Amino acid sequence: MTEDQFKDELQSAGSVATKKSAHFNQAKSRLLEAATEYLLSVGLANWSYRGCSRALGVSSNTLNYYFKSKDFLLAEILESMRRRDLPLLDTFKEVETDQFMELALAFWDVMSDVKQFPLGMAQFELYTLAMRDPDKYSTVMESEQLWIDGIKSILEKANYPEDELASASRLVIWTYRGLYLSLLASDHTQASNDRARSAFKELIRLLVAQFPKTKRA
Amino acid sequence: MTEDQFKDELQSAGSVATKKSAHFNQAKSRLLEAATEYLLSVGLANWSYRGCSRALGVSSNTLNYYFKSKDFLLAEILESMRRRDLPLLDTFKEVETDQFMELALAFWDVMSDVKQFPLGMAQFELYTLAMRDPDKYSTVMESEQLWIDGIKSILEKANYPEDELASASRLVIWTYRGLYLSLLASDHTQASNDRARSAFKELIRLLVAQFPKTKRA
Repeated sequence: MTEDQFKDELQSAGSVATKKSAHFNQAKSRLLEAATEYLLSVGLANWSYRGCSRALGVSSNTLNYYFKSKDFLLAEILESMRRRDLPLLDTFKEVETDQFMELALAFWDVMSDVKQFPLGMAQFELYTLAMRDPDKYSTVMESEQLWIDGIKSILEKANYPEDELASASRLVIWTYRGLYLSLLASDHTQASNDRARSAFKELIRLLVAQFPKTKRA
Repeated sequence: MTEDQFKDELQSAGSVATKKSAHFNQAKSRLLEAATEYLLSVGLANWSYRGCSRALGVSSNTLNYYFKSKDFLLAEILESMRRRDLPLLDTFKEVETDQFMELALAFWDVMSDVKQFPLGMAQFELYTLAMRDPDKYSTVMESEQLWIDGIKSILEKANYPEDELASASRLVIWTYRGLYLSLLASDHTQASNDRARSAFKELIRLLVAQFPKTKRA
């Protein structure tokens, strides 16, 4: 076999593999989407492999074929939940410093919408699982780092005091999580949302007060 | 029976009832203490009435006698967990404005000690139950108000901007909860504690920067 023939062979093997895999991936991604919706509707505490296969109308053999096992499926569902927020993070990175307050409140309003409650609840259930078994759920905390880095790049652009950049970024994310938890665990009324939102707004006000004056809106 | 005799009768009935009730209350309070320790050791997710009676070495009839039912016992355990933090809240109210940073960090260090982790974990498990069933667990959120009021009285003493007092107090509590959650759901190392602590410290720095200058340390 000449070098060119070998390359052709490789290429066609690759393209067959890709076609087969594209079909597999498409079916898998449809199942994953449905499995994620199912988890969000019942909550993490009530989720089971059997319940999931029943809800999706497929056998557990089919789930095994695409996801290998319960743990792998659950991991992929959690990963797919996590990815849902990422487009918002990209928006964050584009933001101008003088829009920081506006954007932070828009972010709050999107995330605290009642339609997002199932996702939020599943996330907190996931944190509580991670509390009891941090090794198994270590990716949960790793993915927080993406958000912390996103906030950091905004604060950096705004010339926030350099020594406090890392702390302030972590502060924003976990204040948001804490206030969001207070909303989810409360009576879910607009008044509860307003109270949590105004506390979040107060944090942003405190941060903006640290921006050098030329950078303020 | 004269009015005086009637009063005497009432008084002695009362004192018998009190004696009986003191004995009852003493036994109940010992059981409650043990039941609380049991819940902290297994976590809320793994807690059961049967497991609790077995761990305490008493029959479920005995538990029924003192606590009426599983739900009443659980409610009393949660109330007893909540009361554990209250002495700390009283310390808070005594604090001088120029000790605010010092006290906040001491508070963090006490609460984030590894010995407190079981209490913290049970609290977050409780919040996630409240998320799914806010009416049943409405007292969980009501008790947060005590803490918010405590912080408010400190910020008020420090002449924190009046319009933002309520928001800032809520901000402190839920930032603390959020950062504490990040610690519990992480790898529980000292490095994770340091990161969460420095974010909490940054919030306190931002708040102190709002105190009128004469009030600062």
